[in-house]
Amino acid sequence: MRTYLDCIPCFYRQALDSARIAGADEIIQKKIIDELSLLIPNFTLEATPPEMGRVVYSLVGKISGIKDPFKKIKENSNKFALKLYPKLKQEINNSENRLLAAVKLSIISNIIDYGVKNSLNVVEEIDHLFQGNFMINNENSSTTFKYNQFKESLNKANTIIYLADNAGEVVFDRLLIEELVEGLGKQVIYVVRGKPIINDALIEDAIFCGINKVAKITSSGSDSPGTILKYCSPEFMELYQNAELIISKGQGNYESLSEEDKSIFFLFKAKCPVIAEDVGCKVGDMVLVGR
Amino acid sequence: MRTYLDCIPCFYRQALDSARIAGADEIIQKKIIDELSLLIPNFTLEATPPEMGRVVYSLVGKISGIKDPFKKIKENSNKFALKLYPKLKQEINNSENRLLAAVKLSIISNIIDYGVKNSLNVVEEIDHLFQGNFMINNENSSTTFKYNQFKESLNKANTIIYLADNAGEVVFDRLLIEELVEGLGKQVIYVVRGKPIINDALIEDAIFCGINKVAKITSSGSDSPGTILKYCSPEFMELYQNAELIISKGQGNYESLSEEDKSIFFLFKAKCPVIAEDVGCKVGDMVLVGR
Repeated sequence: MRTYLDCIPCFYRQALDSARIAGADEIIQKKIIDELSLLIPNFTLEATPPEMGRVVYSLVGKISGIKDPFKKIKENSNKFALKLYPKLKQEINNSENRLLAAVKLSIISNIIDYGVKNSLNVVEEIDHLFQGNFMINNENSSTTFKYNQFKESLNKANTIIYLADNAGEVVFDRLLIEELVEGLGKQVIYVVRGKPIINDALIEDAIFCGINKVAKITSSGSDSPGTILKYCSPEFMELYQNAELIISKGQGNYESLSEEDKSIFFLFKAKCPVIAEDVGCKVGDMVLVGR
Repeated sequence: MRTYLDCIPCFYRQALDSARIAGADEIIQKKIIDELSLLIPNFTLEATPPEMGRVVYSLVGKISGIKDPFKKIKENSNKFALKLYPKLKQEINNSENRLLAAVKLSIISNIIDYGVKNSLNVVEEIDHLFQGNFMINNENSSTTFKYNQFKESLNKANTIIYLADNAGEVVFDRLLIEELVEGLGKQVIYVVRGKPIINDALIEDAIFCGINKVAKITSSGSDSPGTILKYCSPEFMELYQNAELIISKGQGNYESLSEEDKSIFFLFKAKCPVIAEDVGCKVGDMVLVGR
């Protein structure tokens, strides 16, 4: 997906939010904004949003001197989500369609962004969303929730590459991976980012959330808030090229891979008008698209 | 009021919105964004937000070639508000406290921003807001709705300078001015912007909405979305220096005059978190502050 001009105010918003989370004072914040401004005229809209996101967050790291400002937030998200694990597992155990329940929970967990400001609200929102109707056109699928197509593709694949998004969310990914591995006998390779970027999951988050009990964990080698192939490691690229099926979580992975000619299913919550327009859904919709 | 870093993403948002209203294509929009970016590092936060607003909108005018992109929107707002005039006058006639009713309507009209996307919604919103409780602390006043202090200041002044904000809103200003002139025997001088800037009222809007029937109309001589004194005409400055009491409408006038040592009452709806923080109220609150 290309970058839209509407992404630019949002890059500034993200730069400010992230600088503040890094503890930068107003002078440092202004320096970040000024340096970002000098880069904007050279930035092409042909690039994907995570490409600019990478530049924004690297600027915040460089100028604030804080390389992983979201570390504490990620740890809290992981702990919070792990506490929910038994209740979520029970939810799946009680479901008529375990895989569908796990897919829904995995998409819902994409709301765990920027840590847990109010835990109770998150639990309520998860419950509310889980009861909601993801399917618009027919019982099990719509144009932006292609569950039936997803299931068909799953049937044909033995090994699945699973691209992670945020910390915390990882626990929900684990629940889906457990269904894929223990329920359907698949092999899963779970791919996290190579370096700290926003609250995206790293290897340490995947291990803390217990992914290692059900899947192999590796990293894309990249420090982008998405999967920009040209910044990924040769090891990841080999995995990617040979992948039978990819499950891609979150907006950033969608933005960077939506035009790739691969069998990828994107699971995320559409969090902004630009991506909603690109997908053809409403802001807030739970999306499962791909082929 | 100074500019906050949070205003910067908003300047970009405004530049984009305004470029689109001017009919600029994506290439022109990008050129506007790029030129704005080059100005950001030289912009001091000590300046007021309308000072940067002035630069943003002048950039849109210069690059798009459209000097008054909001002309049609202003005309529509005026016509829409004029149609409401009889109903609003009736509302005041039916009120126990005519002045309070007119003050409330004048603040409420600050929602008529960027023209009338959905007339029915605006009428409903006006009704809803008019029934709402503006007073928090006691019957007629609170820290952010100082109606009693406003009335006391009114009692002491003979001539009032009334600084206008948006087109459309002018009709509601007229209702308040009618109470000041016909009800309380004051003289009012109504001040509009000197040149087109966003949807702010010009002399033509004031005349179209019938202000000339109750007040003298003049212009600040400035092209800012606020009243930045250094850009105002000598004629306006003389009026301003000698003013007994100033009624100032809208955020832009507040942002540019909030630190002036004058008897000014600011009437507006707090439309963004930055101004709400500065005033000490919530976003969406109807504000009457000053001394």
